[in-house]
Amino acid sequence: MLALVKLNYMRETPQQPFGTRLLSISKNPTDMGTIRREGLAAVAKNPQRLYVQNLPMKLDAQWITGFVDGEGCFYVGINPHPEMTAGHQVLPEFTVVQHERDVKLLHALKDFFKCGVVRTNHGDRMAYRVRGKDHLLQYIVPFFVKHPLKTSKRLDFEKFKDILLKMKAGEHLTEQGVEEIRQIAQKMNRGRLR
Amino acid sequence: MLALVKLNYMRETPQQPFGTRLLSISKNPTDMGTIRREGLAAVAKNPQRLYVQNLPMKLDAQWITGFVDGEGCFYVGINPHPEMTAGHQVLPEFTVVQHERDVKLLHALKDFFKCGVVRTNHGDRMAYRVRGKDHLLQYIVPFFVKHPLKTSKRLDFEKFKDILLKMKAGEHLTEQGVEEIRQIAQKMNRGRLR
Repeated sequence: MLALVKLNYMRETPQQPFGTRLLSISKNPTDMGTIRREGLAAVAKNPQRLYVQNLPMKLDAQWITGFVDGEGCFYVGINPHPEMTAGHQVLPEFTVVQHERDVKLLHALKDFFKCGVVRTNHGDRMAYRVRGKDHLLQYIVPFFVKHPLKTSKRLDFEKFKDILLKMKAGEHLTEQGVEEIRQIAQKMNRGRLR
Repeated sequence: MLALVKLNYMRETPQQPFGTRLLSISKNPTDMGTIRREGLAAVAKNPQRLYVQNLPMKLDAQWITGFVDGEGCFYVGINPHPEMTAGHQVLPEFTVVQHERDVKLLHALKDFFKCGVVRTNHGDRMAYRVRGKDHLLQYIVPFFVKHPLKTSKRLDFEKFKDILLKMKAGEHLTEQGVEEIRQIAQKMNRGRLR
């Protein structure tokens, strides 16, 4: 008999290894997210970190919005890619970077958004990163439409969203579309400030 | 007849000038905070900024916690002060720094916490700052006790709180107390990371 089982390595969204699953958002809706306690090995390794991670932690939408207002980045890269019809690849990404001591918070964001990966950024910095138009359109954009950012980073998000909607319509696959996206992307982040 | 009127310049907490009062937290509890619309003069001056400021804005406790997790700083300075008995002055402060384009957000924090000032930090950076043990003990510490920070910045806050409780007990007025406070303060912020 053939059982319909989806093995972990077949999942579209990469899962963090077992050790980091200790930080997971509770499924109890009245609780909204709790960090589970770590084992004794972790205590011996770094008691200071445990002190933070043992505290109950609510990750709710408004906290995430505030944190992303401070630490988040919406970015659209446009790289030459001779194999594509338009000659360029459009690479939107949403990133939150933290010192490695707060990596569990990045995993909590990953759990919350149900997409993305946590990777080393550079040196002792870790990054939560969501790439690819499908996950961005499905999870990230709707969240920040529903829970608007309050700093001027919102202007970046609006352009990020506009570019993703163009990508949804396939405009990034034509030279003209890439040029229009480039015009918008130039006004994001530091470009907005000029 | 003598009327009991408290003029604006007599207030203990400095009020921002009229123009910046446009950003104020709504008193409607179901609304939790709305930015009022600016006049046409502001539109002509800088249409991009108006775009952000016109959007409805909720400033709630969890957003503030998330934003402070990213952008806030708890700091205790200890300066030589020959006129004081202990020979030193202990200066705790809570600060949030932003680019001047988001100064209205700093005023919103000031309105929320009912204390502190918004001032130029350096260059194009503005700071929301609360100094003085009374306001810190009355408004800032209880807020972050009730709404715990989620990053390891919480460790700084805990030490900040411990120092303020020592100050409440008058320990900063003795040489021994200042030395104990110095020991705690050295382990905050960058000192915590060493």
